[in-house]
Amino acid sequence: MRIGVLGTGMVGTTIGTKLVALGHEVRMGSRTADHPDAAAWAAPLGPRASHGTFADAAAFGEWVFNCTFGAAALEVLASAGVDHLAGKVLVDVSNPLDFSEGMPPTLLVGSRDSLGEQIQRAHPTARVVKTLNTVTASMMVDPGSVANGEHEVFVCGNDAAAKREVARLLTEGFGWKHVLDLGDISNARGTEAYLLLWTRLYMALGTPEFNLRIVR
Amino acid sequence: MRIGVLGTGMVGTTIGTKLVALGHEVRMGSRTADHPDAAAWAAPLGPRASHGTFADAAAFGEWVFNCTFGAAALEVLASAGVDHLAGKVLVDVSNPLDFSEGMPPTLLVGSRDSLGEQIQRAHPTARVVKTLNTVTASMMVDPGSVANGEHEVFVCGNDAAAKREVARLLTEGFGWKHVLDLGDISNARGTEAYLLLWTRLYMALGTPEFNLRIVR
Repeated sequence: MRIGVLGTGMVGTTIGTKLVALGHEVRMGSRTADHPDAAAWAAPLGPRASHGTFADAAAFGEWVFNCTFGAAALEVLASAGVDHLAGKVLVDVSNPLDFSEGMPPTLLVGSRDSLGEQIQRAHPTARVVKTLNTVTASMMVDPGSVANGEHEVFVCGNDAAAKREVARLLTEGFGWKHVLDLGDISNARGTEAYLLLWTRLYMALGTPEFNLRIVR
Repeated sequence: MRIGVLGTGMVGTTIGTKLVALGHEVRMGSRTADHPDAAAWAAPLGPRASHGTFADAAAFGEWVFNCTFGAAALEVLASAGVDHLAGKVLVDVSNPLDFSEGMPPTLLVGSRDSLGEQIQRAHPTARVVKTLNTVTASMMVDPGSVANGEHEVFVCGNDAAAKREVARLLTEGFGWKHVLDLGDISNARGTEAYLLLWTRLYMALGTPEFNLRIVR
């Protein structure tokens, strides 16, 4: 499958590299066509990895991963192009966090909205699936590195078929054992607000390499 | 020990009953001196259980548990009396949730503040410890009912000795195996915001009888 990955940070490069390893063709998008971080990412990965602008990557992908910083996500997706995202699975990994005052961050949305919903509203025919935003980048594609993978990743979104396809990538591709479907995209209010606890846990535990196991 | 419990709802009665069973003298406080729910709670529990106004209960207790609805907490604690709370361990179990628009609720505080901090500011010499607000009432005093107790309860607060004393009650009294100290009271921003995910999990799982195990 052809996949566009928007964002050249830790999340974008980690997910992009994993997708190439799984055999997909991946185009990483950034603000400029020749971003050095995107070029450095693509160079060692062979012909299945390429890079370009946000619009190039979005147009290339059958699926698109939004791996941008939350504060920039809506602007990046607009520059990627509504038409280039229309009808596509749009996997939103971003978090609406404001680090301008340092750690811990604050939320850029109130509890009546979420970045996931804002993205869905701005791209009404995109099949937005929010997931992976509750774990650190390395764990996104290697959940077995912690507690033998016995912990949860959440998905939410309005398109049931898109969630099933994303869940299959998470389990068969990325190795997740426990994918919990919370429901429609408004559940992003919950998984995004959890970052306020995640950042506190990160500071208390001294590592980002942790996750939640839901026990009943 | 003499303990005041503010609030006659599920949380107040559950914690009050457990504290009586542990041998403490408990006075439940409510808006009126003769609240029928408080009277009904105290009647079968014998001489160690009593009830009165919020001020009666706060004056009575060496420790005070705030088990009120979050929207009322500051007003209740004001009516309990700043002098009656001064210097005491004040265990804050409340959540700043607004259910006025139904489920799921929204938060009454933004991500730059928390109800725990508001309570600490309003009662500057009280030794506020935020805890237990992340689990349903029955699990607060019976964590072993789920996953053999292999899950976390959080504490935070500015007074290290108060946190140690509360953690001892949680472990030796209530049966918690894993008490995670997050740090100062500002960490209530994290544990309170988590309720936005908790309510989504509650709706997805169909039960409030769940909790988080932090895996590393």
